[in-house]
Amino acid sequence: MTRTIRLLLSGMGNVNRSLIEIFLKQERLLQERYDLRFQVVGATDSGGAAFDQAGLDLQALLDIKRTKASVATLPTVGQPDVGLPALVQQADADVLMEATPVDLRTAQPGLDATRAALRKGMHVVIANKGPVALAYGELAALSDLANGKKAQTPMLRFSACVGGFMPTINVGWRDIRGAQIELIEAVLNGTTQIILRAMEAGGTFAEALLDAQQRGLAETDPTLDIEGWDAANKLVIVANAVLGQPATLDDVDVTGITRLTYADLHAAAERDHRVVLLCRAMREGDRYALSVRPTALPTNHPLARMSADEMGIVFHTDIAGRLSLQTLERGPMPTAAAMLRDLLEIAQATA
Amino acid sequence: MTRTIRLLLSGMGNVNRSLIEIFLKQERLLQERYDLRFQVVGATDSGGAAFDQAGLDLQALLDIKRTKASVATLPTVGQPDVGLPALVQQADADVLMEATPVDLRTAQPGLDATRAALRKGMHVVIANKGPVALAYGELAALSDLANGKKAQTPMLRFSACVGGFMPTINVGWRDIRGAQIELIEAVLNGTTQIILRAMEAGGTFAEALLDAQQRGLAETDPTLDIEGWDAANKLVIVANAVLGQPATLDDVDVTGITRLTYADLHAAAERDHRVVLLCRAMREGDRYALSVRPTALPTNHPLARMSADEMGIVFHTDIAGRLSLQTLERGPMPTAAAMLRDLLEIAQATA
Repeated sequence: MTRTIRLLLSGMGNVNRSLIEIFLKQERLLQERYDLRFQVVGATDSGGAAFDQAGLDLQALLDIKRTKASVATLPTVGQPDVGLPALVQQADADVLMEATPVDLRTAQPGLDATRAALRKGMHVVIANKGPVALAYGELAALSDLANGKKAQTPMLRFSACVGGFMPTINVGWRDIRGAQIELIEAVLNGTTQIILRAMEAGGTFAEALLDAQQRGLAETDPTLDIEGWDAANKLVIVANAVLGQPATLDDVDVTGITRLTYADLHAAAERDHRVVLLCRAMREGDRYALSVRPTALPTNHPLARMSADEMGIVFHTDIAGRLSLQTLERGPMPTAAAMLRDLLEIAQATA
Repeated sequence: MTRTIRLLLSGMGNVNRSLIEIFLKQERLLQERYDLRFQVVGATDSGGAAFDQAGLDLQALLDIKRTKASVATLPTVGQPDVGLPALVQQADADVLMEATPVDLRTAQPGLDATRAALRKGMHVVIANKGPVALAYGELAALSDLANGKKAQTPMLRFSACVGGFMPTINVGWRDIRGAQIELIEAVLNGTTQIILRAMEAGGTFAEALLDAQQRGLAETDPTLDIEGWDAANKLVIVANAVLGQPATLDDVDVTGITRLTYADLHAAAERDHRVVLLCRAMREGDRYALSVRPTALPTNHPLARMSADEMGIVFHTDIAGRLSLQTLERGPMPTAAAMLRDLLEIAQATA
């Protein structure tokens, strides 16, 4: 018999809208392959909530967002006065799908929503890097991550936080079991990768940034990307989740790409190197030294071989050689697909 | 309290010897990180068995193999008249670590040992491609793979079978959940990759093969590698385990690399392509068309960018973009590390 999993969508930006599109598109595949049906009982955005314990109309959610209006303006189900924490309390749902905008200072409103859900025993799938980077230890303690398979402990998954669909976290904590990770190298920010590869063609940093913005590949305010903070945030998540090292942004030595010139890239190319914004976790005894900085890598390095559209990670281990991953993706759909992967893991683990 | 997992080692070739070396080297890491201790209660090779329910001396096992003698010649614990199936019956062990030599025609003796272990309720970790490629459906039916988490169903894992430490199978069945795989491309045979990259420097196929043999990187009888059967075997495992398509070697269109010349590789390079021995699973409706053949790929393709030491796989999906993995490894240690990864998964799932 098909099992129904009830969801709350926290945030109605690109990622959760893509998730709805996936539910509509893959409905048959999800039913046939996993015998599962996903029902969205609540959704929130900055204007309020929509709620229907019998299930919201997915197409209506997409349509209202296309008009730039809040889900709270939907007839019958709209609830302009209900915020995210209240919805979590009021709704009877199995999993919170948290994808509110990233705030690296407070991690709100995602952090409070995640706390409330986990305390209520609701599983959480999170694509918003803020809460995971700022409060990993606290959230792990509220979930299966620190408590194992004990009954009643809700599950927390966040494989969408580090490199879109690339299974950075999953491979790190599941597949490299038993080996010692000596060094992690990664390119985890798409915007800087696009800018650096464009600069190689001869442009200045400013020109490459403007072009990326005009093509919709860089934010209007690109500070977090070009100054290295987005990448650093992802490295903090990797340090906590994969390396077991409680780390914060303060522990990362961060340099952005704003001062790089064509001459720098050209000089690297002259000696068969290529500059990337490199995240690095280097084992030094019992700790890992964490850094994000522009780095020239030999052109045969897995991260130097990548195209402008790719992100990647390389694990160097003691007994298991060198393992590399790269993802090539455009737009938010693959990040939503990573949330779906986490959701399916939870559904199967709790069957 | 530290939990002890009791093991039988089936086959004492490079892989299981490397596994013993890992147990000796990582003993502290395995205890500290997972609170686990691994005890080898039995081991077999073509000369018989060694057995001690209280645990065999790991160093003694390595030492006797270094003298090319059978473990059955070990004082006290050696049992020259006990074969693999008998040992599986007689020993009280939790997991069979199956790494006997690959036989693509009968899959013996690994297949019978795996059957006997699973029927007895013993978990199996298998690095030997033969049984998995030839009898996937039967072995899955005896294990958790077809029966889910039912109590008493032994677990079967084989992540070491396809690409050494590269988590081909695990990423395929765990991380690409929810997406439709449209195309898999992979380079899964190390010997042919080494030969093709060497031929690019100007040598003939015969010269490149001889050099690889002299450097210990190709078998004395390299037929299975250079004719494409080793790669096809791995593709069959991927088809069964990841794509859910019951397939055998007969379903794979196989062409080896023996007729390739420097001129072929040079012509490809002239148009910015590179020839690899490509495994391919292309979705055509409800089935995947399976092939192994020398193929020229554009030089910016993830599998064309690899060095002579790498193997790799690329998953092309509908909603999750393109995901690439590569492993760089030498010698049998990373394959043994993949067996350890499976063993740790079983240990944690049955805790």
